[in-house]
Amino acid sequence: MTTENKSLKKRGLSKLKEKANELLNRTIDQHVTLAVTGLSRSGKTAFITSLVNQLINEGSNTQLSFFDPVHQGNFIAAKRIPQKHFHVPRFDYDSAMSALTSEPASWPKPTHGISELRLAIRYQPKKSILKYATSMTTLTLDITDYPGEWLLDLPMLKQTYQEWSEQTHELMLSEPRASLSHDFLTKLNDIDPFSKASEELLAELAQEYTALLHTFRHDLGLSVIQPGRFILPGDLAGAPILEFFPFPGVAGLDGNDYQNAPDDSFIGMLRSRYLEYKEQVVRKFYRDHFLRFDRQIVLADCLKPLNQGKASFSDLELAISMILESYNYGKSGILSRLFSPKIDKLLFAASKADHVTPEQHTPMVALLNQLIHQNKQQLNYDAVEVKTLAIASVKATTSGISKHNGKEVPVLQGLTQNSPENDQQNIPKTVSKADGQTDKLEQGDKQNSTNVFGRKITVFPGAVPSQLPSDSFWQNNGFNFIEFLPLQGLNKHHGLPHIRMDQVLQFLLADKMI
Amino acid sequence: MTTENKSLKKRGLSKLKEKANELLNRTIDQHVTLAVTGLSRSGKTAFITSLVNQLINEGSNTQLSFFDPVHQGNFIAAKRIPQKHFHVPRFDYDSAMSALTSEPASWPKPTHGISELRLAIRYQPKKSILKYATSMTTLTLDITDYPGEWLLDLPMLKQTYQEWSEQTHELMLSEPRASLSHDFLTKLNDIDPFSKASEELLAELAQEYTALLHTFRHDLGLSVIQPGRFILPGDLAGAPILEFFPFPGVAGLDGNDYQNAPDDSFIGMLRSRYLEYKEQVVRKFYRDHFLRFDRQIVLADCLKPLNQGKASFSDLELAISMILESYNYGKSGILSRLFSPKIDKLLFAASKADHVTPEQHTPMVALLNQLIHQNKQQLNYDAVEVKTLAIASVKATTSGISKHNGKEVPVLQGLTQNSPENDQQNIPKTVSKADGQTDKLEQGDKQNSTNVFGRKITVFPGAVPSQLPSDSFWQNNGFNFIEFLPLQGLNKHHGLPHIRMDQVLQFLLADKMI
Repeated sequence: MTTENKSLKKRGLSKLKEKANELLNRTIDQHVTLAVTGLSRSGKTAFITSLVNQLINEGSNTQLSFFDPVHQGNFIAAKRIPQKHFHVPRFDYDSAMSALTSEPASWPKPTHGISELRLAIRYQPKKSILKYATSMTTLTLDITDYPGEWLLDLPMLKQTYQEWSEQTHELMLSEPRASLSHDFLTKLNDIDPFSKASEELLAELAQEYTALLHTFRHDLGLSVIQPGRFILPGDLAGAPILEFFPFPGVAGLDGNDYQNAPDDSFIGMLRSRYLEYKEQVVRKFYRDHFLRFDRQIVLADCLKPLNQGKASFSDLELAISMILESYNYGKSGILSRLFSPKIDKLLFAASKADHVTPEQHTPMVALLNQLIHQNKQQLNYDAVEVKTLAIASVKATTSGISKHNGKEVPVLQGLTQNSPENDQQNIPKTVSKADGQTDKLEQGDKQNSTNVFGRKITVFPGAVPSQLPSDSFWQNNGFNFIEFLPLQGLNKHHGLPHIRMDQVLQFLLADKMI
Repeated sequence: MTTENKSLKKRGLSKLKEKANELLNRTIDQHVTLAVTGLSRSGKTAFITSLVNQLINEGSNTQLSFFDPVHQGNFIAAKRIPQKHFHVPRFDYDSAMSALTSEPASWPKPTHGISELRLAIRYQPKKSILKYATSMTTLTLDITDYPGEWLLDLPMLKQTYQEWSEQTHELMLSEPRASLSHDFLTKLNDIDPFSKASEELLAELAQEYTALLHTFRHDLGLSVIQPGRFILPGDLAGAPILEFFPFPGVAGLDGNDYQNAPDDSFIGMLRSRYLEYKEQVVRKFYRDHFLRFDRQIVLADCLKPLNQGKASFSDLELAISMILESYNYGKSGILSRLFSPKIDKLLFAASKADHVTPEQHTPMVALLNQLIHQNKQQLNYDAVEVKTLAIASVKATTSGISKHNGKEVPVLQGLTQNSPENDQQNIPKTVSKADGQTDKLEQGDKQNSTNVFGRKITVFPGAVPSQLPSDSFWQNNGFNFIEFLPLQGLNKHHGLPHIRMDQVLQFLLADKMI
C-alpha cells in the first residue's frame, strides 16, 4: 500500500466517521424556540441583538462567566443560519448592530410586528450520555420577537364581548383614562345599541378609540392597551376587524335582547367584529406562534412608569397580571380550554438596569418580584419556572463613586441626547429616595462635556423603590430617571457590554446544553 | 273593532307582506363581485370613488344615460352597506371624496394593497320573471380593489423557478433594464450556485433586486414588475419569502445537479423561496380573492407610457399580454390546472381620457385594442367577454375649440400643479402628431392664470397614435401629455363629472339588473 493510498484510506475512514456523527447529530440535536416580548420601547431589539452578539462572538471580549456552557468550556461556537418560516420577517440583526457601532452610535430602530432569527449553537455535551456518542452536538435556537401588545390580547380569548366591554369600559372610567375618554363615552351613550349600524359611524368611533389607545400608550405611558393590534395594525389597517370598541352599559342590556340583536344592529356589529378579531387575530397568533414557544422572556421597563407616576405604574402591574394569566395552565386558566402551550420557563427582566447605579439592582428586582408575586396564586409553579432579573442588554453607562458632602455616592457616567430639552436644568441633580428624602448631589465629574456624540454627564439618577410605593409617597414625590445613548466605539466583532446577559442565557438555555 | 285595532291589524298585514317580500328577495337577490385593478397610479382609487359616487347619488346631477337601468327608469337607489370580509381593509370612499371636494381639491391618496366596499343596489326588475314576484330587488355589489402587480404575478403559478428565472433574466438583458441591471447581474455571475448559501448575502442581493424593480416602475415607467409583492410588501417586509431573484444561467445548469441541489445551497434556497412565494403569496391571492371575482376591470394609463417612450410602451404591451393569460381558460392556460375562476366579463379601460381632447378618444381606444388583440389568439372569447373603453373616472378638464392659424383646433382647459417644474416652458405649446409633424399652437385662452388652486391653462395636449408607433417614429418623436388637477368646487352629494362611466356600468352591471 502506498503512502498515498494509506492517506486516502485514512481520509475515507475519517469521512465515514464524520458522516456517522452527522447522522447521529441529526437525531439527537436539540431545539429551543425562545420568544422575546415586552411593550413597545422596552428594549426588545437591543435585547435580541445583544443575545445574538454574545453567542456568535463568544471568546471575543465576551463576559459570560455565569453561563455554564461557556464557563465550563463546553460551548464551541454559534452562527446564524436560515430561519424556518419564510413568510415571517427576519430579525434585522445587521442593521441593529450597525446602529450600535456607527459613529455616532444610536439605539436600533424598534420592530413593529413579529420577526425571527435562527442560531445554530455547537457544544460538547458533558453531563449527558451524548458525550459517549458524539463529540459535538447542535442546539438550534429560534428567536421570535413579537409585540407585548399581542400577549396582552390573549386574555380576550376567554372573554365574551360583553365581558371584555365591561372590563375595558371600567378601565376607561378611572383616571388617567377617564378625563380623556369622557367625550368618546358620551357619544356612545347617545347611541341606541339596537339601532341599525352605520359602518361609517363605527369607523369614525373606532378611529377615535384608536387615537385614545395611542394617547394612553405614548403620552401617558400606560401598559394595558386592548386590542393591541389597533395600535400596530400592519396590513389590517382600515379593515372592519379593527373597528370595534367597548360599549358602555352592554352589561346592563337584557340578555335575550342582546343575544337576539341582529348582526347589522349597532351592538350586533360590534359583537361580530370582536368575535372575528378573537378568531382572526388573537387565536391566529396563539395557534401559529404562541403554541410553538418553549421559553419566554418578557422585558419590562420599570423606570419609565416610575417617571410617569402612579397611574402608569399601576397599569404596568395590571399588564403583568394579564400576562401571567397566559401561563396559568390550571383549571381556571384560559389555556386549558385551548391547546396547551409548552412554555416551561418564563423570565421577567427589568431592562435598562444600566440606567441606575449598581446598588439599585436589588431594589429593582425586589420591585419586579412584588409586581409578579401579587399574582402568585394564579400561577402553577410546577408547570412554569419563573425568574426575575435586572439586566442591561447593551450597557450604556459606566458606574463609579463620587464624593458628596464628604460621603461617597455611587454615580453613572454616560451620554445623553444633545437636544434643547435635555439641557442642564433637566438633568436631575437631586437624589430621590423612596423614603421621601431628597439630597442635593455634588456632581462627581466636573467635566460634563458636549460634542457631536451627545452630552457626557456624570450623575446619580435616583433610587429605585424596593416595594410598591404608597399613595402618600406618590403625592409628594416623583422619579426622574434619564435616558442614555449607547456608548461610543463599540465593535461589531466583540461582545457588547451588558449586565447579566449571561444569567439570562443560563436560565433560558443552559439546561438544554448539558 | 276599534280604529286602533283596525290600524294595528293593517299594520300587521303590511308588515307580513313586507316580511314575505323580504324573504323572497333573499332568495332571488343577485350578487356581483367586481374586481378593480391597474398598475400603481393608473387611477384605481378615483375610479372606485366615482363608480360609488355615481350610483349612490343617482338623480343628483348624475349623467348615466348609457346605463340602461337608469335610462329605463328601473334603477331605484344604491347605498353602502357593511362589507363581508372583516379582515380586508375597507375602501376609504369618504377620504377620497373629501380630497376631491376640498378646497383646493386634490386627487385621492393611492391604495397600496387590497380593499373592499359593498353596495346594495335596489331596482325594479323589468324584463325578467322577477317583476311578477316582487316589486323591487337588490343587487349586492362587492367592489374589490387590488394592485395590478398582483395580477401580473399570476403567470408565475405555471412556471418553475428555472423558467421564471430565465424569462426574467432575459428581460433584464434588454434595454432600458440592461444598463441598470448590469452590476447586479455581474455580482450573480461570480457566485457558485451550488455553494452554501449565506442568508445575509441573499438578503443584500434581494434588496438590490428590489431597488431595481422600484427604479423600473417609478423612474422608467415600466409595467412588468415581478415579483409584484416586492414593491408592495406590507407585513411581509423583511421576510425571506421576499428575498429571492432570478439567477442567470440557471437554465444552463445540469438538470440533475439542479434537482439535487440541497435547500441550503445558493440555488436551492432561491428555488425554495420562489416556491414558497408562489404558495403563500400568489396562490393565496388566487384562492382567497381572484377565484371569487365575477367581473374585472383593468385600468391602463396609456398616456404616461407614451410620454416615457418606446420601452415603457412596449412593457405595457407585455404586461397586458401577461394579464390576458390569467383569463385564458383553454387547455394551455394556467388556470385550467387550478380551480377555474368565474370571471365572465373583462373591461380594459384607458384611463385619463379627459387628459386628451375628445376627438382623440377614438385613436386611444384603437391603440388599446391593438395592444389587446395582439394577444387575441390566447383568449377564449366564449368564456370571457372583453371590451375596451376610453374613460375618465373624474373629469378634470373642459374641452373646447381654439383658433390656430385661422383653423379651429380642439383644446382642453384645466388646472396644473403650481410648481416650479410646471413652469410655462414645460407646458406643451406644440401639437405632436403621430405622422411626425408638429405645429405651433396659438393658445385659445389668453388668460392662463395662477392662484392657490393651481394654474389654469388652455392647451392642446397632443394627438394619440391610433396604432403602435413604429421604431422610426420613436426615434424622431415623443409625447408630452400633461397631468391635470381635479376641477375645483365639486360637490360631495352630486354625481362627479366623468367620461363614459355610464358605459362602464352598462357593461359590468346592466345584465345583472334586468
